[in-house]
Amino acid sequence: MPHSLLPEDPDFATRVRRSFDAQQVMHTLGASLQRVEPGEIAIVLPFASHLTQQHDYLHAGVVATIADSACGYAAMTLTPPGLDVLTVEYKINLLAPAQGETFVAVGSVLRRGRLLTVCRGDVLATSNGREKAVATIQATIITLERELATRARAPA
Amino acid sequence: MPHSLLPEDPDFATRVRRSFDAQQVMHTLGASLQRVEPGEIAIVLPFASHLTQQHDYLHAGVVATIADSACGYAAMTLTPPGLDVLTVEYKINLLAPAQGETFVAVGSVLRRGRLLTVCRGDVLATSNGREKAVATIQATIITLERELATRARAPA
Amino acid sequence: MPHSLLPEDPDFATRVRRSFDAQQVMHTLGASLQRVEPGEIAIVLPFASHLTQQHDYLHAGVVATIADSACGYAAMTLTPPGLDVLTVEYKINLLAPAQGETFVAVGSVLRRGRLLTVCRGDVLATSNGREKAVATIQATIITLERELATRARAPA
Amino acid sequence: MPHSLLPEDPDFATRVRRSFDAQQVMHTLGASLQRVEPGEIAIVLPFASHLTQQHDYLHAGVVATIADSACGYAAMTLTPPGLDVLTVEYKINLLAPAQGETFVAVGSVLRRGRLLTVCRGDVLATSNGREKAVATIQATIITLERELATRARAPA
Repeated sequence: MPHSLLPEDPDFATRVRRSFDAQQVMHTLGASLQRVEPGEIAIVLPFASHLTQQHDYLHAGVVATIADSACGYAAMTLTPPGLDVLTVEYKINLLAPAQGETFVAVGSVLRRGRLLTVCRGDVLATSNGREKAVATIQATIITLERELATRARAPA
Repeated sequence: MPHSLLPEDPDFATRVRRSFDAQQVMHTLGASLQRVEPGEIAIVLPFASHLTQQHDYLHAGVVATIADSACGYAAMTLTPPGLDVLTVEYKINLLAPAQGETFVAVGSVLRRGRLLTVCRGDVLATSNGREKAVATIQATIITLERELATRARAPA
Repeated sequence: MPHSLLPEDPDFATRVRRSFDAQQVMHTLGASLQRVEPGEIAIVLPFASHLTQQHDYLHAGVVATIADSACGYAAMTLTPPGLDVLTVEYKINLLAPAQGETFVAVGSVLRRGRLLTVCRGDVLATSNGREKAVATIQATIITLERELATRARAPA
Repeated sequence: MPHSLLPEDPDFATRVRRSFDAQQVMHTLGASLQRVEPGEIAIVLPFASHLTQQHDYLHAGVVATIADSACGYAAMTLTPPGLDVLTVEYKINLLAPAQGETFVAVGSVLRRGRLLTVCRGDVLATSNGREKAVATIQATIITLERELATRARAPA
């Protein structure tokens, strides 16, 4: 494992899972953590008809939600205990209509910083056993003391 | 009204409202169209606890969903009848935690093209009567014949 | 002037002009500061044949360079003395080929933060007396102590 | 080679090199094509003092120029003869100050479309024999008939 991906918190996976479980929207979407590794997260989401756009594909906003979350939690795997993460911004390309039975968003840390972490991610759809990329994301994540992250103020 | 914002379809508002209503995810989120004008759309979303992240604010993915949709529908107000729109990509900055009772995403057409339209948008939160910007988005939308937009292929 | 645009450093314009003059690339491009105001900067660049792409328009990279710089310096107008700024990231849409005699990039602060500032900008081309938007940018700028900004390390 | 990276034009490298040579700005920067392969381009740029920002590093605008060009030409390797490419938009993260003796921008096609191609790229700096990532880009490129690309109108 490259030095830049060594977790500072041996309990990083517990911390990530606890935070994810506290996100009500993930229950609403039916998303769950598939994989929690140092610097990399996979979130899985089965297709569901309450999440569609006008052509009955998964809405791009839902695709972006799991892509962004995979990036944010990938960053969190590498933060020290007691620190929280917030997405500063991201850019996403929607590569194809999100058609499929299952969607997996994989986010990875590209550059880890004390304050800012840059992540990349991809969302893959599986349809009749065939996998296809439906989105790709590039995101900037900020690491903050928990108190700052919970106060109703700007990320920085 | 500047020439670039003259709608080609006098029934643009009906078309936008019909497409919006067909998006199941909007019902799941509790979002609705607040305003449909040539080149500009406002989507309103009341806070709801099934949409939160780990600190009980609105999840950034939900903020992005209404921001992106406001941009896409703003583009659709200017397309000829029978054509559909898809988001090619967007970039969003999350300016502050999405805390508030009500969220309004306003999307406007910045540059209208035959094929590609560029939009900007802002999401404002209202909390105890005070309004605050929580996100800003820049999006590229493609106009496609309906048949292309519904086929399970890439946007272009 | 809104409170958020009050400069902390009365000498902000001197500081911005000094930093701009120290950018050798601006001399190479022939760019200069047209306007330095609290929260807003305009950079002007005359067309020059050593800056073109394959169709003899201004290269998009040059357009982006003045757009990004206008955003960065707009942020710097609001930082306390002794602090420096760095661009964390930006996203730019190229709206039209950069054809014209003169190009002006205007960058403005959209949200000022202690650490991160979000700016928007536009690049306008003037051709035969007619003005046209050729690019639009959204950028995230970080404020750093000068020592950090000059060290050969990541922005944060 | 994956099917999606098979070039339609056996002479793609000649076409890319001819277009690159016609970009005056590349001569001004001192940039050259290091590698031209189906779906991937590398552009190399030696450090030069006429390209610096205020701390004597390479200006971010120059970094972005070679990153964007590497993406655009990567897309062009896969277009049919007679078609041209234009950058619709890109997003770049600046990961570290651009300090070094040599800079290499590598752009690759992530998703090839008939009309829109999505590319990713990285810029690496080499300083005293050590390589370091200084930027990462995600770009959307449009393929156009040459006539459209040279007319003074919007990319689409």
